[in-house]
Amino acid sequence: MRVFNFSPGPATLPLPVLEQAQAELLDFNGSGMSIVEMSHRGPVFKEVAERSEACIRRLMSIGDDYVVLFLQGGAQLQFSSVPLNLMGKNPVADYVDTGIWSAKAIAEGKRYGKVNVVASSEEARYTYIPEPSTWKTDPNAAYLHYTPNETIGGVEFHYVPNSGDVPLVADMSSTILSRPLDVSRFGVIYAGAQKNIGISGLTVVIVRKDLLDQAMPVMPAMMGYALQAKENSMGNTVPTFAWYVAGLVFEWLEKEGGVDAMAERNQRKAAKLYGCIDASNFYSSPVAENCRSWMNVPFTLADDALDGRFLEEADAAGLSGLKGHRFVGGMRASIYNAMPEEGVDALVEFMRDFEQRVA
Amino acid sequence: MRVFNFSPGPATLPLPVLEQAQAELLDFNGSGMSIVEMSHRGPVFKEVAERSEACIRRLMSIGDDYVVLFLQGGAQLQFSSVPLNLMGKNPVADYVDTGIWSAKAIAEGKRYGKVNVVASSEEARYTYIPEPSTWKTDPNAAYLHYTPNETIGGVEFHYVPNSGDVPLVADMSSTILSRPLDVSRFGVIYAGAQKNIGISGLTVVIVRKDLLDQAMPVMPAMMGYALQAKENSMGNTVPTFAWYVAGLVFEWLEKEGGVDAMAERNQRKAAKLYGCIDASNFYSSPVAENCRSWMNVPFTLADDALDGRFLEEADAAGLSGLKGHRFVGGMRASIYNAMPEEGVDALVEFMRDFEQRVA
Repeated sequence: MRVFNFSPGPATLPLPVLEQAQAELLDFNGSGMSIVEMSHRGPVFKEVAERSEACIRRLMSIGDDYVVLFLQGGAQLQFSSVPLNLMGKNPVADYVDTGIWSAKAIAEGKRYGKVNVVASSEEARYTYIPEPSTWKTDPNAAYLHYTPNETIGGVEFHYVPNSGDVPLVADMSSTILSRPLDVSRFGVIYAGAQKNIGISGLTVVIVRKDLLDQAMPVMPAMMGYALQAKENSMGNTVPTFAWYVAGLVFEWLEKEGGVDAMAERNQRKAAKLYGCIDASNFYSSPVAENCRSWMNVPFTLADDALDGRFLEEADAAGLSGLKGHRFVGGMRASIYNAMPEEGVDALVEFMRDFEQRVA
Repeated sequence: MRVFNFSPGPATLPLPVLEQAQAELLDFNGSGMSIVEMSHRGPVFKEVAERSEACIRRLMSIGDDYVVLFLQGGAQLQFSSVPLNLMGKNPVADYVDTGIWSAKAIAEGKRYGKVNVVASSEEARYTYIPEPSTWKTDPNAAYLHYTPNETIGGVEFHYVPNSGDVPLVADMSSTILSRPLDVSRFGVIYAGAQKNIGISGLTVVIVRKDLLDQAMPVMPAMMGYALQAKENSMGNTVPTFAWYVAGLVFEWLEKEGGVDAMAERNQRKAAKLYGCIDASNFYSSPVAENCRSWMNVPFTLADDALDGRFLEEADAAGLSGLKGHRFVGGMRASIYNAMPEEGVDALVEFMRDFEQRVA
């Protein structure tokens, strides 16, 4: 029986995507070999790669002034790639600190230049987003980095901050493709694939072309946006299976109605779950109401001695991956694009029932 | 119909591995989810990861004084990782230049320290291996780097050079697991997975533990061997599917008799192919006899105007991926562990037939 999998990433995938990958795993499109066995430079994979890129470009309305890279290394390697690619002319950058992932990006930024933390919610254990009007930004910074959705804290920007002429850089790992986005507001967008794009081992990086000339000399060659842009991401052997699965997910998304439809569905899913939490004195959300994530919903029980029993019974009910991160404690339900609405309904029903039985 | 796929990487996989991956792609081991959907930190994947590591340790007799890392980024990122991890105390290293891949590793090494090219066969278009007794090594180098098998040139070391007290570092991407190896002779061994280990998107790095304290401060955190060793390669989200497939390949290898059986089979496959080339005036190998690769066999036709026809007819005969690299020209047959002996037999038969028809 297929469970509802609320893992933060690697995360649940659309079932039709898995079914297609399974059906064609031994012989891709009559080629006589698996998609995982063929040269990334051959015509068959090239078409898969191009189709995948074209589809995410349509979904996100990405302009020709941006390159879309399909790279290895994960979003955490991008914490280094961003300064290495952008600090070469001006080793000063602004960072907004809204959670564990912001903080890790900041630590890596400091390795390569001067980092201004323009605002931080650390003192409140990252439960809110500092009002942008209070940010102490530097108009001459090489870029302004922020984390639109904090996977651990469950804190999400529901707007794009204004960075003026400073290129805006965003770690969108856990929110990309969850709603419409004006890509033209950004200098660089990067996202680990294992949440809303596909499987782990792939990072999508969207870079405004005029930023391709600012790398630092100590940058490992393979991390260079300019090199990878010139080589269509094939500066080295690409993670072919992950790229292929991303394409299947993009096509599924398009069939489902694209990011507009996703936004509607995601908002509805989140509203159901927060509604259940807010209606109860047993469950609570640590996050300020105006920045609650649509993607990752942390919540705690009034009595944390019941956490173990909650998780055990949830698991038995086919609701998996709900253990919260130790930083927040309690539970976390990750409800990315591929989590069906019935999964959230089942979770809400379980939560109400559990509360009635134990509270 | 399944073709014989001679691609240099991504490359052919053992059919039973693909079949098992396909069979369990929708539901791994009764977990109710795909292996690609589950947390890399959960107990189910943890067991897969540990089993995979244990199996390569058995296959290669890797001692407890070595860590085995499963990383992203490809062998080309290791060209940077090696100096970044090993030049922190002593930014001087020796490199042997036996081909295109050596040369790329050298270029990256130079980014971080002083590189001595101790020997080079570039002047002969990389068709031989300079005799180790002529190498101008530095007994105080941080390491000695070489490329046991050059995937493009088809030049392979059939012995392990003696580096004295200097840690020996090897890019084994296209030869790892093809034969027995005394790992204790090495400081670092790294290998992209898409040849003898599995699918692209994974790099296996074997590091002697006493070398984990020599990193440079500019090293991106995720590239750190020490950090990844401490985190069991999970400093960031791992490429779970590639790691899982690697485990299936290792288990297949073990069932087939391990590296001793592979060595025998690989040597036999190579002998058949070189035998066919040497018996003919139509085909020729550019590589010196004592260092011809068991894994990648480049060969040219007496008349290169026939190259296109050869490739077309080979393809029609179910022999795929034979186009040579532009550096060497002609053809290249990559005959890794997973290429069955019947594939080589079919190729040899085709070559003889082609020669008779056109020569």
